[in-house]
Amino acid sequence: MSAKSTALARSAVNETLAARVLAGDVRAASRLMRDVDDGRESAVPELQVLFPHTGKARVIGLTGSPGAGKSSIGDRLIHAYRRTGKSVGVVAVDPSSPFSGGAILGDRVRMQQHAEDPDVFIRSLATRGNLGGLSRAAADCVRVMDAMGKDIILVETVGVGQDEVDIAGLAHTVVLVVVPGMGDDVQAIKAGILEIADVFCINKADRDGVDRTDRELRSMLELRRAVSTGEAHRATWEPPIARTVALDGRGMDDLVEAIESHARFLAQTGQREDRDVLRARTEFLAILRDRLLASALQRLERQRGKLDEIASRIARREADPWSLVAALAR
Amino acid sequence: MSAKSTALARSAVNETLAARVLAGDVRAASRLMRDVDDGRESAVPELQVLFPHTGKARVIGLTGSPGAGKSSIGDRLIHAYRRTGKSVGVVAVDPSSPFSGGAILGDRVRMQQHAEDPDVFIRSLATRGNLGGLSRAAADCVRVMDAMGKDIILVETVGVGQDEVDIAGLAHTVVLVVVPGMGDDVQAIKAGILEIADVFCINKADRDGVDRTDRELRSMLELRRAVSTGEAHRATWEPPIARTVALDGRGMDDLVEAIESHARFLAQTGQREDRDVLRARTEFLAILRDRLLASALQRLERQRGKLDEIASRIARREADPWSLVAALAR
Repeated sequence: MSAKSTALARSAVNETLAARVLAGDVRAASRLMRDVDDGRESAVPELQVLFPHTGKARVIGLTGSPGAGKSSIGDRLIHAYRRTGKSVGVVAVDPSSPFSGGAILGDRVRMQQHAEDPDVFIRSLATRGNLGGLSRAAADCVRVMDAMGKDIILVETVGVGQDEVDIAGLAHTVVLVVVPGMGDDVQAIKAGILEIADVFCINKADRDGVDRTDRELRSMLELRRAVSTGEAHRATWEPPIARTVALDGRGMDDLVEAIESHARFLAQTGQREDRDVLRARTEFLAILRDRLLASALQRLERQRGKLDEIASRIARREADPWSLVAALAR
Repeated sequence: MSAKSTALARSAVNETLAARVLAGDVRAASRLMRDVDDGRESAVPELQVLFPHTGKARVIGLTGSPGAGKSSIGDRLIHAYRRTGKSVGVVAVDPSSPFSGGAILGDRVRMQQHAEDPDVFIRSLATRGNLGGLSRAAADCVRVMDAMGKDIILVETVGVGQDEVDIAGLAHTVVLVVVPGMGDDVQAIKAGILEIADVFCINKADRDGVDRTDRELRSMLELRRAVSTGEAHRATWEPPIARTVALDGRGMDDLVEAIESHARFLAQTGQREDRDVLRARTEFLAILRDRLLASALQRLERQRGKLDEIASRIARREADPWSLVAALAR
């Protein structure tokens, strides 16, 4: 077989993968998401084929402090949406290493009860390495599930750090899960994500301190309103605060209604389209940045040992990194 | 005054800022770090002037779960190093918005007792926005403190997410602070940072569950050893586990000795230089990536409305982001 016909054969297989996803093949979707998680270039042409078939799913971000019960809430939300006949995808983002297998599995096991349901698809991501790799992979997995025809896609993240804020930014509706009485440190963590939360959920609401947490959230929201700059012409959304006990399901109806009312708000005000444009812009810039860096690295790699030499010169303070970049990026 | 002489005057002022930092002017250093935190381009020439004067400080990363007591540990470490006559800088990274002022101040207040000590310099960073902006700003603040002549620089981060892992990667010695009995979720979070931790600190060690946490850490470390790939020729470091009660200072001597023994290990094995080269490489690539993106954006902005148009076309699914990037990055 000539090199050319091999390439053609491979291209045919690739087309088949995306085509199989569009035909509802769950194994093809799993395979593509694994490629995405591994950062394989081969995933890009597949995603390009899927692209025109995306944009239909409603994406719900589920974020919050460690131990807040995001997975249990997610589990309850799956049940709630399945009851209304909607198909559900879950992208769970674990900013953790392969070592953490045990702990991660613990969370995932809770969701295994949905394993028999063909209309529920759950995928964990462990991408690490390059900055931004995680949020890019999460965005692409959402896209694959969107193309599969999932009506609702839950994106579950730990909710700390810029990566997590970016991932939450994938969602049409961001739900921030907190628990009563977690102390000052947690207050600080919440703040980064506070600005983009559309719905608050106080989970484990049978615990002491729930009223205090409620008051704290309300005063933070007031602060956010006071700080927010203008855009007076836009309809503004007042984030509701739902109280839940995910373990026994109490309050879940209120939470679902809060999420649904935000969805109606977005649809009625045209802000869903605004969010889609903003997301497209952010993603375009991220892809552009990665592509530019990849090209520059290829040029560097053609000169064997060049990058090592640069790093050593910087470490020895013989040259500063900005000058070397300027020389290279001219 | 002509445009040219204005530029010259400004350049003279800029030179003065870096020169003042080198002369030990604390206000100039504060000003430069604020510029860094704000992402101002004007900081770059200043950092270039400082660059040859850096590389002397020892950088200690302090990371861990929310509520683990990082600030209290940091406070104790400042005291310990000051007693040995070393000057100390602290870069505290808050992945939080301006809204969180209250909570952040709470932490910072604890450190105000050092405000009277001219050999202690504390700076909080709140940089958000661009991916990677936080770790870049942290690296540059470490550099400013290094140029100021600080012997020890503590970098305090929340320790969750890729940004935080990158920030911890700035350090010669990474200390991971955990507390007994924080449940599975925290186990998962720790994992990302576990790989790069050099010293473990179980804080609040007067609580129940300290032995169990100790055992869990040891088994994670065994797993890490089992997974770690080769490099058999290199001397390997066995991370010690110190138990502390930061509130009353118990165990702090052990923690300091653990940190110091790691510093001796790095010096004796030549691995401190290896870390510096690796750090230089990572930072060079980050600066290169930002520079390339900035240039591409400038080209886009010259065509008014071009980026908005691109985002809208993507959101409407008229074109996919990869094709548009390929057309632009050719």
